[in-house]
Amino acid sequence: MRTILVIGIGAGDPGQLTLAAAEAIRQADVFFLLDKGAEKHDLIALRQELMVRFARPGHRVVELRDPDRDRTADGYARAVDDWRRERATLLEAAIAEHLAADGCGAFLVWGDPALYDSTLAVVEEILARGRVSFAHTVIPGVSSVATLAARHRIGLNRVGRPFLVTTGRRLAARLPADVDDIVVMLDAHCAFTRYVDEELDIYWGAYLGTPDEILVAGPLREVAARIVATRREARERKGWIMDTYLLRRRDPAGP
Amino acid sequence: MRTILVIGIGAGDPGQLTLAAAEAIRQADVFFLLDKGAEKHDLIALRQELMVRFARPGHRVVELRDPDRDRTADGYARAVDDWRRERATLLEAAIAEHLAADGCGAFLVWGDPALYDSTLAVVEEILARGRVSFAHTVIPGVSSVATLAARHRIGLNRVGRPFLVTTGRRLAARLPADVDDIVVMLDAHCAFTRYVDEELDIYWGAYLGTPDEILVAGPLREVAARIVATRREARERKGWIMDTYLLRRRDPAGP
Repeated sequence: MRTILVIGIGAGDPGQLTLAAAEAIRQADVFFLLDKGAEKHDLIALRQELMVRFARPGHRVVELRDPDRDRTADGYARAVDDWRRERATLLEAAIAEHLAADGCGAFLVWGDPALYDSTLAVVEEILARGRVSFAHTVIPGVSSVATLAARHRIGLNRVGRPFLVTTGRRLAARLPADVDDIVVMLDAHCAFTRYVDEELDIYWGAYLGTPDEILVAGPLREVAARIVATRREARERKGWIMDTYLLRRRDPAGP
Repeated sequence: MRTILVIGIGAGDPGQLTLAAAEAIRQADVFFLLDKGAEKHDLIALRQELMVRFARPGHRVVELRDPDRDRTADGYARAVDDWRRERATLLEAAIAEHLAADGCGAFLVWGDPALYDSTLAVVEEILARGRVSFAHTVIPGVSSVATLAARHRIGLNRVGRPFLVTTGRRLAARLPADVDDIVVMLDAHCAFTRYVDEELDIYWGAYLGTPDEILVAGPLREVAARIVATRREARERKGWIMDTYLLRRRDPAGP
């Protein structure tokens, strides 16, 4: 029986690898890497470093070119669905070609595989098609959200209270009224700038866990412009950016 | 200058320790352990194992008896506030007594320190009092929530959609209407049983990451009673339980 390991490798710091993830890397015969293009070269280099340090001699690396995603599509979820299907087709063929009948394949996933990552959905889709079969195991990792909170030395929740994890796209549509702590992922358009008149604090971080890490925190109305400028400058300098943030309503009513 | 390391050690599996957390354990001179009483003996044993494996020779362990919390109080947040103040007093005295002026102290925190844990708030309170001073660093960890998702091999969010992390107490008050994926922590009263008539799936896990791990998943109306019975039986057998779950609305409207 083939095995596929979906391994969370942490937010970008090799030190965030867990012992179980290192052991899983050691077990793999074949690593399937989806290359997102030159812009994320630093992340690819870091992934290579993990394989050099932990993978066993004789392991193979199958690099695949990630299908382009239609970012102009109106239907965001449908565009992602199409993209996932293309990825599934690509990976299904790669598994059939490169993974022996008793082989162990691995996907290395940034952060934690449960958080805004498509790998598990792609794996489910391949299994549902039924043309290749395998057992699969997920090794959880330290997420960029946990890293954001650690760097700012804050909790994500306040005592007995909830928090929401959402996307920039949704935050741009509205500021949730009934939750006072909001983690925002995938925000390419600085949706937080819409809410500078609210009583909010922001805890922002980019390239979390890497040597390029940038942190900004403070009252949103005071630091929003600085985050926008910092983000633009960093993105131009490095060619890509990954960032996330927590919006926290100041002095909300008690629970 | 004194240093305090707040170290996330994962949900219960020693393999979830990160390389950075292992290194942080190696750096510590003194471990401050808050003993929650005999009922969580298994967890204490696991923490001991981590110190035996990774702490340097000559390290000291300061065990403190956690103040009792008033669980009967009407004002939950106020009861937690009081409890945090007592903890701060206890730990402030322990740091002053046991940590040298250039010493490195450590707290070992289950899961991730940012998620429903009071250590960071206690540290802030000690610093705010100003009687002992120290630099502090947070090492993020793999949370029980990430472990829950990994064991069920699911994502916490669906494509482009948000998820809420909340408490059993809040879920008992109402089922959030505007979010379809809800992670529930600290639910001693099986609040999910109130919603068996909704179109919900549940992914439940107890003792996540430990050899006693229990997983149940399925349509809420079909598995709710089994979870309640399993939970009661396990709690009686072991004397304590830690569990968490995801409620997922079936086929919600598109994003």
